Amino acid sequence: MIEELGIRAKKASHLMAKLGQTDKNNALLKAADALISHADEIIAANDKDMEYAKNKGMSEALLDRLKLTRERLDGIAEGVREVVALDDPIGEVLSMKKRPNGLMIGQKRVPMGVIGIIYESRPNVTVDAFALTFKTGNAVILRGGSDCINSNIAMVNVIRAALKDAGAPEDAINLIEDTDREVAKEFMRMNKYIDLLIPRGGAGLIRTVVETATIPVIETGTGNCHIYIDKTADMDKAIPIIKNAKLQRLGVCNACESLVIHKDIAKKAIPLIVDMLSENDCEIRGDETSVSISSYIKPATDEDYGTEYLAKIISAKVVDSIDEAIEHINKYSTGHSEAIITEDYENSQRFLDEIDSACVYVNASTRFTDGFMFGFGAEIGISTQKLHARGPMGLLALTSTKYIIYGNGQIRE
Amino acid sequence: MIEELGIRAKKASHLMAKLGQTDKNNALLKAADALISHADEIIAANDKDMEYAKNKGMSEALLDRLKLTRERLDGIAEGVREVVALDDPIGEVLSMKKRPNGLMIGQKRVPMGVIGIIYESRPNVTVDAFALTFKTGNAVILRGGSDCINSNIAMVNVIRAALKDAGAPEDAINLIEDTDREVAKEFMRMNKYIDLLIPRGGAGLIRTVVETATIPVIETGTGNCHIYIDKTADMDKAIPIIKNAKLQRLGVCNACESLVIHKDIAKKAIPLIVDMLSENDCEIRGDETSVSISSYIKPATDEDYGTEYLAKIISAKVVDSIDEAIEHINKYSTGHSEAIITEDYENSQRFLDEIDSACVYVNASTRFTDGFMFGFGAEIGISTQKLHARGPMGLLALTSTKYIIYGNGQIRE
Repeated sequence: MIEELGIRAKKASHLMAKLGQTDKNNALLKAADALISHADEIIAANDKDMEYAKNKGMSEALLDRLKLTRERLDGIAEGVREVVALDDPIGEVLSMKKRPNGLMIGQKRVPMGVIGIIYESRPNVTVDAFALTFKTGNAVILRGGSDCINSNIAMVNVIRAALKDAGAPEDAINLIEDTDREVAKEFMRMNKYIDLLIPRGGAGLIRTVVETATIPVIETGTGNCHIYIDKTADMDKAIPIIKNAKLQRLGVCNACESLVIHKDIAKKAIPLIVDMLSENDCEIRGDETSVSISSYIKPATDEDYGTEYLAKIISAKVVDSIDEAIEHINKYSTGHSEAIITEDYENSQRFLDEIDSACVYVNASTRFTDGFMFGFGAEIGISTQKLHARGPMGLLALTSTKYIIYGNGQIRE
Repeated sequence: MIEELGIRAKKASHLMAKLGQTDKNNALLKAADALISHADEIIAANDKDMEYAKNKGMSEALLDRLKLTRERLDGIAEGVREVVALDDPIGEVLSMKKRPNGLMIGQKRVPMGVIGIIYESRPNVTVDAFALTFKTGNAVILRGGSDCINSNIAMVNVIRAALKDAGAPEDAINLIEDTDREVAKEFMRMNKYIDLLIPRGGAGLIRTVVETATIPVIETGTGNCHIYIDKTADMDKAIPIIKNAKLQRLGVCNACESLVIHKDIAKKAIPLIVDMLSENDCEIRGDETSVSISSYIKPATDEDYGTEYLAKIISAKVVDSIDEAIEHINKYSTGHSEAIITEDYENSQRFLDEIDSACVYVNASTRFTDGFMFGFGAEIGISTQKLHARGPMGLLALTSTKYIIYGNGQIRE
């Protein structure tokens, strides 16, 4: 049955590759409208999911994430319309060069083909992932969290009907309705039909996908982000940046989880940092030196330096040099986002060069690591691996290229 | 022990990222010289491998592939010098834009980090893979075929000494000396230390790596390449192209394995094709229509259309339309290289657009799918997947990017 889904998605991907921008945009607008006009049935399905989840004892935060209202559906449909407004990257020829034998060789941007998305019980991801993959001419197979299954079935059926109505292939969106784990496993190994798998969710989900999948995966996510306060740091920049990066939103992957502080500025910087963080009830766990400077700081274990808290806790370490700072960060970081606060030219360049992370900042908050903040107009996730896409992924990350070669009878000598 | 190798390679990769072009090129030249000045000990080690392989009853073709001579070592060292002469892609900033809040966001080309290469008993790959990964600032971990182990140990030791001598990190090249399969399995799952795994070899090796690895893999290789003779094909172009693509070299992935012929040209084309192929002792296996046109053609099974022969055999199918041709090719192709022979503008464009392969040709031989032929100056393999790199992979395929962000105190609103 799941193989059947793969076959249908693959076939739809070939039809999708032929659709022009106008056709794709019209179909997306029809889908957005349909989500609004069918709001009642979608919300009724969501009510079932909510009731089941409440009976199961789901936490308030997760219940809130699961809930769909008319207002939220408006927002979701608006998100689709925003994707319509973006440039379509498909079809661009990136380069075209003439070889000595007269062959013209160019590289053309094409859809990826069939994309699989595995995610948790967030109904907005269902529509969001569809809009981005459809805009880039792909077919998508969705595998959402089981707690969200009724909402997902309702939304996907509405979208499929809208696509059919618009003359687009309805199999451009497919939902795995069987929430069994074995089915998900099989899904992750369907190399014959799926070109790319993107897991969106917590560290556990991502690890499972990386370990199980044989399809190429883009690992998104976890961020143990650092801010390094260099010895020439301007503390008037540093304090607002630390506050923003740690506290503006706690549960996000681009939040700062660890401070690294040069010893020559530690006695000045740490009291200022402690004042700001303690006012905001944020715990600090630090090394011996930092504890000796402020009694507010609790001793850190080695594990603390490797922890993405996603809470009002931050780790701190005093270092002797920028070399030690870079080594410490490259050891404990998840390769997501790191910042240096410095007024020193040489150190700013060394940090940018030597820190091995997707996004490296000078004098700015790590919270900017985001497709919208980077000006991509959309985001399908933030890649922490180095293959294909690294950092925030917009529409381009959902595309591939192919070589097109124009000849007039050339053979190889 | 293998984890120890990972730790050392990772550390070396951070040192490599700091090396400038001149340092890298000097070290590569020293390595090339050392391979020549230590030719005797490398050939002595190779003799051991050859003797063991002969006793094992290895075929002549594989023995020839395994053998190192002074002349071949000269060629291998020359290959390293050619890599030195290539442009270094590392450090280029691909774009740098100012955001409304004043942040300058740019994308910089950086080394991939640690690259794993798994390959068969071809001693030239050992040096070739090292040169390309080193040039792009990476550390490499090699896992070659067990039949080649003595040659590999000798060459890697010579290169490591040369790197040390040049002041470069010797752990930039590492060889897994334990040829046990379980060790290889463990290697393929070292996500913590390795950023990318490239298998180079036959279909079996590649399948094993794809199924076992949790590290991101670039699938290289198998090519069931098609040539489609459209109804307006100029047979004066078609015959030399078919001859070149099928017969110039039999055992290569860009060789043509299947012909698709439009029915309106079949009666003219097939006798010409049969004349040329039969003169060259190449068997043809075709569908009913083609068999009815020439008795030289033997009936094909469905399996024939999916087979990469790598031999003097080719399959053939007559189709009613270009639509049927495209559908047939997209069904049986491995997504490597396909060509259309046509004088029709519309059909040439449709073929380029709708064929879902890494390289799509109009009126040229599929044999051009090759990093050198494409002007990359080097090749680490030909990717048949759509992620990161598709088609011939040169130096760029061994690099990643990172975002560098210059701020002056920006925080997220």
